[in-house]
Amino acid sequence: MRWKCTVAYEGSSFDGWQAQRSGNTVQQVLEKRLSFLFDRAVRIQGSGRTDSGVHARGQVFHFDGDWSHGPTDLINALKTGIPETIRVYEAEIVEDAFHARFSTIGKCYIYRFYEGDALPFETRYCLSLGKRRVDLEAMNAAAQVLIGKHDFTAFGANGRDDKPRDPVKDLRVLEVTREGPRLTLRTEGSGYLYKMVRRLAGCLLDVGLGKLSVDEVAAIRASAKPSRVIVTAPARGLSLEWVKYD
Amino acid sequence: MRWKCTVAYEGSSFDGWQAQRSGNTVQQVLEKRLSFLFDRAVRIQGSGRTDSGVHARGQVFHFDGDWSHGPTDLINALKTGIPETIRVYEAEIVEDAFHARFSTIGKCYIYRFYEGDALPFETRYCLSLGKRRVDLEAMNAAAQVLIGKHDFTAFGANGRDDKPRDPVKDLRVLEVTREGPRLTLRTEGSGYLYKMVRRLAGCLLDVGLGKLSVDEVAAIRASAKPSRVIVTAPARGLSLEWVKYD
Repeated sequence: MRWKCTVAYEGSSFDGWQAQRSGNTVQQVLEKRLSFLFDRAVRIQGSGRTDSGVHARGQVFHFDGDWSHGPTDLINALKTGIPETIRVYEAEIVEDAFHARFSTIGKCYIYRFYEGDALPFETRYCLSLGKRRVDLEAMNAAAQVLIGKHDFTAFGANGRDDKPRDPVKDLRVLEVTREGPRLTLRTEGSGYLYKMVRRLAGCLLDVGLGKLSVDEVAAIRASAKPSRVIVTAPARGLSLEWVKYD
Repeated sequence: MRWKCTVAYEGSSFDGWQAQRSGNTVQQVLEKRLSFLFDRAVRIQGSGRTDSGVHARGQVFHFDGDWSHGPTDLINALKTGIPETIRVYEAEIVEDAFHARFSTIGKCYIYRFYEGDALPFETRYCLSLGKRRVDLEAMNAAAQVLIGKHDFTAFGANGRDDKPRDPVKDLRVLEVTREGPRLTLRTEGSGYLYKMVRRLAGCLLDVGLGKLSVDEVAAIRASAKPSRVIVTAPARGLSLEWVKYD
């Protein structure tokens, strides 16, 4: 049977999602625990990678395995033997055709800024702006020229010379809201290029700080070429909120 | 000149406030940095200890030292060279008679519960109750019999045979409020015995879970003897919110 699981994790404690040599990735911690529970090597497939330091409130993965004790027991079995910085909180049996990565129809990310210096309880989850103050209206005006179905090559990872595969993405939501010193950038889209959300965040921040104009953002996007002007915002402010399937 | 500083810290990263052999206490981290800045051994005096794992949003300490660059520069100098899990965010010059511990006239603590399993972003800052649900009305009824000026020996640290010094404290506020799955116990008082807030939290939780009645709480308090019935709630849920001075 195929299991679909939803997991939250605190990115600052791990070297990202994807398995790598350090062994300290979310995927590897989960695979190690599942392999113990199923008494064989279990491999999981995530909806996509998250970089080192990036958080997730609703990352989704799937794996195949026969488990006779029901979803609640599986969730409980995943509460022990792994750090509390990873928490699987939903599990359900899905059709074999379900694929955590290829069945995706949308994703939501949040990027958090803090005007001032965030206290220790928040500092892992946002980018502190210190004394800098942003122009929220300008940020949202720039967001408007990015929303829609476009070639987002300009917002793909820096330093890549080759055109990324399928650079056309449908950005359905991109907005920044304020609550006191906390600024929340929220985006929903069909998918994202590597580091794209952090580059959208870096771009809108520069607009908010007066370093980039809305017209310049429109031109950068329209160029459909990797841009050296766009800054990649730090990982700590980013969180994968949810992944949507059919 | 005497400096009064306000500091927030994430308790899970340290072995409490008070200097001890491990060296990994908030006091020692701050003293090390201040000693570097002032180029001599600087000792600081906190408003009181916090245990290992207990957080602070508004711990206060004082120290003596000549600093010619003003409070903002002092705050900035304390932003580097120490972990971001400690953040001094207020500094002011005070009269030499000010004493962070002895000039205190009140303190506020918050204890956080979570009905369910808190996600990784909150788990360090609250006690997750899993499937257990509490009776908020009963908790607040029990709080009512604790509010006021009483001998709180029953809520002093477990296992102490000798009567603690000055066990009479004035508990001005003790209430539990709910926001979705989050329960917040807030208390303000003239002062607290060792581990008293965690024992108040453990006591009210047991009332909320139906393990203790309001009458039993009243009797325990009135006994003015160390109680073996009262449970000490885990450190992670506790935060020192502010310390008040004349």
